[in-house]
Amino acid sequence: MSTVHAYAASKANGVLEPFEYQLGAIGPQEVDIAVEFCGICHSDLSMLENAWGMTQFPLVPGHEVVGKVKAAGDQVSHLSVGERVGLGWHAGYCMTCDQCFGGHHNLCSDAQPTIAGRHGGFADTVRAHSASVVKLPDNLNAKKAGPLFCGGMTVFDPLVQFGISPTGRIGVIGIGGLGHLALKFARAWGCHVTAFTSGEGKEQAALDFGAHEVINSRAPNAIKGATGRFDLLLSTVNVKLDWNSYIGLLKPRGRLHLLGAVTTPLDLNLIPMMFSQLSVSSSPVGSPATMRKMLEFAARHDVTPVTEHFPMDKVNDAMEHLRSGKARYRIILDR
Amino acid sequence: MSTVHAYAASKANGVLEPFEYQLGAIGPQEVDIAVEFCGICHSDLSMLENAWGMTQFPLVPGHEVVGKVKAAGDQVSHLSVGERVGLGWHAGYCMTCDQCFGGHHNLCSDAQPTIAGRHGGFADTVRAHSASVVKLPDNLNAKKAGPLFCGGMTVFDPLVQFGISPTGRIGVIGIGGLGHLALKFARAWGCHVTAFTSGEGKEQAALDFGAHEVINSRAPNAIKGATGRFDLLLSTVNVKLDWNSYIGLLKPRGRLHLLGAVTTPLDLNLIPMMFSQLSVSSSPVGSPATMRKMLEFAARHDVTPVTEHFPMDKVNDAMEHLRSGKARYRIILDR
Repeated sequence: MSTVHAYAASKANGVLEPFEYQLGAIGPQEVDIAVEFCGICHSDLSMLENAWGMTQFPLVPGHEVVGKVKAAGDQVSHLSVGERVGLGWHAGYCMTCDQCFGGHHNLCSDAQPTIAGRHGGFADTVRAHSASVVKLPDNLNAKKAGPLFCGGMTVFDPLVQFGISPTGRIGVIGIGGLGHLALKFARAWGCHVTAFTSGEGKEQAALDFGAHEVINSRAPNAIKGATGRFDLLLSTVNVKLDWNSYIGLLKPRGRLHLLGAVTTPLDLNLIPMMFSQLSVSSSPVGSPATMRKMLEFAARHDVTPVTEHFPMDKVNDAMEHLRSGKARYRIILDR
Repeated sequence: MSTVHAYAASKANGVLEPFEYQLGAIGPQEVDIAVEFCGICHSDLSMLENAWGMTQFPLVPGHEVVGKVKAAGDQVSHLSVGERVGLGWHAGYCMTCDQCFGGHHNLCSDAQPTIAGRHGGFADTVRAHSASVVKLPDNLNAKKAGPLFCGGMTVFDPLVQFGISPTGRIGVIGIGGLGHLALKFARAWGCHVTAFTSGEGKEQAALDFGAHEVINSRAPNAIKGATGRFDLLLSTVNVKLDWNSYIGLLKPRGRLHLLGAVTTPLDLNLIPMMFSQLSVSSSPVGSPATMRKMLEFAARHDVTPVTEHFPMDKVNDAMEHLRSGKARYRIILDR
């Protein structure tokens, strides 16, 4: 038995307060991670608000963990104590369904979220199934790597899943935590990259992140001017946009892929999709195999998020900063 | 100059009456086809009704043509006079855009519909650009092949475009002209095939066309019982269904592909699509290259439509039969 020192909320929208819990004996395929850094994702806030009705309290948020293996079960052969690793949205999979056997663990219907039904990374220690824990490449900056495990994974995965060619043209809608990483990954992928933003003063930032051009998403004429130009549009916003306008910007065989958790029905017009063989889709994070590819690629191309750091004991200040909408572009708690 | 004897409507919903027009000198890349058979597609009816606002009168419908080459331009090297060929929805392409150069002529924005801006196959002769005219395999029944060039192409194309594996499970929604061909193609493709139909007495027919099972689409519990089962759902209906229910039937990474021209917005819920990496898409007919594949595959597997035949001079009776909804399953005009 060992004691974990964490921060937990006891109710929806509650303050995060020091919270201790006991870890039982480690399972044969489990790993305990000594947390060094933990990113804050917008979904930590949504879980704190119980926005999706799936939160169990006390809630220990945190699913963008970087740290060192402090204990590993008997059957864990691919990770060693002392190695630096990361953990994202999932902390376990069933390991035997078609999706798990097929390498698509992130689509396992029994995948276990790191912060639902278990406790997350706003803590000194977090436990996870070893299949969900990925070694961090030595040449990737550990201090800034946490957000790659959820936000980064989410925007990188479609490039792999849909076989996006470096000859392609990608548009990224919304330049925030996910969007700025999408710009960086798409640029490193070799594509032509366009940023769509309505954010004040984000034009120069988008260019700095790798966009070849920026389109003001509040200027209908500017949007219309980009008709038929994109192979892939990645939307990172979680509010309703005029999706049919964006569909009009796709090349034949193009795809509008929505990564923000939009809860309003999409209201798509089929006929333009039919004429140009278009797809609309979505996806959640990524599999361990894709996570490894993403980390190696990020290290090779020096893709890391722009981060702001708070000491972990200032976690409530950090959450308030996220709530304010002023985070640029991703917040990390340092232990 | 030669005179074409055709049937044309002079106004929306008008009767089709004998109509003659002159063909000028044949272009170097054009082909004239002596029509032997011409299928009637639902889109001929839509064009007659000017349902899409793009009809030019006089309208000569007919875009599921089978016949013999009676003349070919100087530069036509892949077709010879006397060969049996077919022609579908498109009678020409720009030949130089990215889509044409890429082999996706059907997505060319300047593709010329066979019955808009030119005259179709309800005639003794039809002229088309040779790239849109495809040789009929000798071992395919010419009398029944016409509907393959539009209806058949439409349902076959997604199998190719999306790399559907014969290990997959396909559901076909709506068992009519397109749907019955979709069942036959999917079965020949090697997939497990499910038919969704609300049609009285269509259960046995669906099984005969190749479905392994039939689900009554008016029985919500039956639909729910198929949750998470399909890699691909092909909808051939042109009315609004509860698309979110059908999306729930997809396996992770599955696709709902809509082939019927639904004009009501789709109202899709994103979150289930996100959890399982699902796509919703559509497409129009197919390219000449895919048409060749389709015809060879249809000949090898003996895939032809179930047809009802009218002599061409009974074209108005045939159209009325189509309007009645009683056609089983595809109508062909014989000359």
